[in-house]
Amino acid sequence: MSTNNSNTRRQVRLGLFIQGAGHHVAGWRHPDAQAGSENLALMQRITQTAERAKFDMVFLADGLTSGPDAHPSMAMRLEPLCLLSALAMGTRHIGLAATASTTYSEPYHVARAFASLDHLSSGRAAWNVVTTSYDRTAANFTRGNHPDHALRYEMAGEFVDVVKGLWDSWDDDAVLKDKARGVYFDPAKVHTLDHKGQFFAVKGPLNASRPPQGHPVVIQAGSSGPGQDLAARTAEVVFTAQQTIEEAQVFYRDLKGRLPKFGREGQQLHVMPGVFPVIGRTEQEAKDKYAQLQEWTDTSGALSLLSDRLGHDVSKYPLDGPLPELPESDQLKSRAKLLTDLARRENLTLRELYYLVAGARGHRIVWGTPVQVADALEEWFTGEAADGFNIMPPYFPGGLDDFVELVVPELQRRGLFRTEYSGTTLRDHLGLQRPVSRYAGR
Amino acid sequence: MSTNNSNTRRQVRLGLFIQGAGHHVAGWRHPDAQAGSENLALMQRITQTAERAKFDMVFLADGLTSGPDAHPSMAMRLEPLCLLSALAMGTRHIGLAATASTTYSEPYHVARAFASLDHLSSGRAAWNVVTTSYDRTAANFTRGNHPDHALRYEMAGEFVDVVKGLWDSWDDDAVLKDKARGVYFDPAKVHTLDHKGQFFAVKGPLNASRPPQGHPVVIQAGSSGPGQDLAARTAEVVFTAQQTIEEAQVFYRDLKGRLPKFGREGQQLHVMPGVFPVIGRTEQEAKDKYAQLQEWTDTSGALSLLSDRLGHDVSKYPLDGPLPELPESDQLKSRAKLLTDLARRENLTLRELYYLVAGARGHRIVWGTPVQVADALEEWFTGEAADGFNIMPPYFPGGLDDFVELVVPELQRRGLFRTEYSGTTLRDHLGLQRPVSRYAGR
Ligand SMILES: Cc1cc2nc3c(=O)[nH]c(=O)nc-3n(C[C@H](O)[C@H](O)[C@H](O)COP(=O)(O)O)c2cc1C
Ligand SMILES: Cc1cc2nc3c(=O)[nH]c(=O)nc-3n(C[C@H](O)[C@H](O)[C@H](O)COP(=O)(O)O)c2cc1C
Repeated sequence: MSTNNSNTRRQVRLGLFIQGAGHHVAGWRHPDAQAGSENLALMQRITQTAERAKFDMVFLADGLTSGPDAHPSMAMRLEPLCLLSALAMGTRHIGLAATASTTYSEPYHVARAFASLDHLSSGRAAWNVVTTSYDRTAANFTRGNHPDHALRYEMAGEFVDVVKGLWDSWDDDAVLKDKARGVYFDPAKVHTLDHKGQFFAVKGPLNASRPPQGHPVVIQAGSSGPGQDLAARTAEVVFTAQQTIEEAQVFYRDLKGRLPKFGREGQQLHVMPGVFPVIGRTEQEAKDKYAQLQEWTDTSGALSLLSDRLGHDVSKYPLDGPLPELPESDQLKSRAKLLTDLARRENLTLRELYYLVAGARGHRIVWGTPVQVADALEEWFTGEAADGFNIMPPYFPGGLDDFVELVVPELQRRGLFRTEYSGTTLRDHLGLQRPVSRYAGR
Repeated sequence: MSTNNSNTRRQVRLGLFIQGAGHHVAGWRHPDAQAGSENLALMQRITQTAERAKFDMVFLADGLTSGPDAHPSMAMRLEPLCLLSALAMGTRHIGLAATASTTYSEPYHVARAFASLDHLSSGRAAWNVVTTSYDRTAANFTRGNHPDHALRYEMAGEFVDVVKGLWDSWDDDAVLKDKARGVYFDPAKVHTLDHKGQFFAVKGPLNASRPPQGHPVVIQAGSSGPGQDLAARTAEVVFTAQQTIEEAQVFYRDLKGRLPKFGREGQQLHVMPGVFPVIGRTEQEAKDKYAQLQEWTDTSGALSLLSDRLGHDVSKYPLDGPLPELPESDQLKSRAKLLTDLARRENLTLRELYYLVAGARGHRIVWGTPVQVADALEEWFTGEAADGFNIMPPYFPGGLDDFVELVVPELQRRGLFRTEYSGTTLRDHLGLQRPVSRYAGR
């Protein structure tokens, strides 16, 4: 993967992970933060900023629960497809990625919504496939239990296949709109999927013509073995949380190593770990900024948030003691393991671990001057630990403005990041091919 | 209802029923039509036209099937919530109504999507509650069978209650964003619904703060007895298909008569039949326009479309013979009955019935000069057959432009329709109160 076959140099991919109230749990308290997980004007502003900086895409996580203990960004969130449809209107190039669950939705609805977003945005949609972390989600959907990790991934594999099949319902040239002959579309170019699988039976065709991108880009966020297999078979971008370069390199190699067994090559899948940047004009300024965010952090809900993230109740343990021995979480395999490994490696107390989670939720924290931050990104990029990064500013819009004004130009100077968009679709930005329909040539 | 207690005169409500390929089955063939059921630029243009004309709302029907025989407007449709979120961006006043099914979705998803649209549009969202007409829909959703008419309405009643409950999850003043104290929201003002009913179990709270309108406006489209009961209990607008003023008056009286049993009054529910207008500067011009549309109509699919609408297969009967005797359709009660009554009353052949359906799908066809069309609307409005109308132009944008340029000013001259918006939310336009939360004062 290090030597690219084409003449153009391999480029860093940048996503902006949007979270209205900021990624740091206390980010919204920053005097310059425009706190608002439901603040459309803020989301419009930051999406336009990211587009001006030539980001590949904006990215929305999602969840289907809330409650009195929830983080401001999770307690309320605008529905991602609605929000991205709105954001598509004020932008022309930037990709629009939304998370949707394969455990709590229907393939027909998901295929349709992303096809619609792709039409509305002229080819900028991406679907982040998740199986949903939290088992309490089941209580909002009339089902007793959250399917276990293995079953969720089996369902997800079939779900993604059905969605891709539905996207092919209409041939690219099926819609004619021939007024003279009175032929709106050619019925011979409409296909019935007739899927009858283990979990889903979906006849089709979808009530949407083929999306401009053929298929919206498929992203996968789930890093366990089954998660990696799903990604290697079906995804074009993987969003992941990695702490150290060594660990990230292992993940990168492991994941890309799974591609050949599905007849795919390395450049068909981009690995994009999350990065939480804290940027100062000097090292000291960055340090102070981070310290200030930690100071604003309320630790009263710390143990409940940590329990959530670990998949085990740690509320009876002292905040200043070590992380207790815990059995492996069935539900949150890759994410719980990441935090457990981190705590062991760095000998952290529960409080220290919480502070890390409060900031970046297990993602990599990078702080320093613009040059130091660019170095940190370049190191992972050239070291084959990442193809790009999902940027998670501590607060909005200031945390993003810092990155865009200070770090992006540095990456551009180094020839690592584009200075202009060369195409109009998200596939163009990511250098991904437009999928050929399964019915082509039949 | 004829004498309004307030000082302002009762006003006609106007909705624009959007269908990109036009309401007439051949509307898209009109030389001036910008054919396109997925044409965003067209939808933006007509929504802005309707807003300039001070319409109360635009309205999107929906369905969850497609196929080689489908009408261009039904074969592909942009997902309504995505489309309205996009349309919200180019408009500031007009209401945004989307159809969503209580049979093929989840209350949590529906509550959330409409809450999001209400947030994104600053209080302009409406949900058109339908139970889904076509039984073939079941084949796209992993279930063997389409629930029967009675069961669908039982599910719908519970579904609507859950959605309204979820919209109340957060008190209006729950979100504080108090940076100094570090309190984003007051946990005591977040409520868990804990619904456990016959069809749904939904714990809540919703992950959306209370919508700007309290509850998005609830519309109901289904006109059978159970449909009317659901509307009388839960809806604020009823969309209906009515052919004659006598029939419409009976429906209007019957429906409003059901309100007191749910503790409600007449002005809390607006009855809005569909109207398909064909407008000419002279009567002859209108006649010619209509004849031209009929001429473009392809009758090859006529019997399959009629069978769909009647809920019975009539494909073995001659096109130029009478409508055969048919048992009552269980699935499509009110709509099938409307067409059957119409055919009997006017002694229509199947072909003639098809031509009516191809135009307005059972809705009222009004043609003539602007004054004649305005007369036709005024007659129903003052005669208590309607509180307003859902306007269904034969093709876009021209068919709408005719109505807006010629009929709207005539209605305004008569003092029947607003010349300016007096508020900003859809509830303001419709004169509907903002619902008080079920938890208020607890
Ligand atoms: C980087 C990353 C981001 C994720 N984002 C979401 C999300 O937005 N919503 C969600 O429900 N689950 C999310 N997940 C959870 C996964 O979909 C999955 O349910 C969980 O992580 C267990 O899978 P794993 O062990 O393969 O990681 C994410 C997981 C990872 C690793
Ligand atoms: C005026 C009108 C509009 C309707 N619009 C839709 C629609 O957009 N999508 C849909 O699936 N069903 C729609 N329906 C169907 C109803 O939801 C319902 O399933 C069907 O009409 C049977 O109910 P009823 O006998 O009470 O009318 C509509 C019905 C009426 C009367």
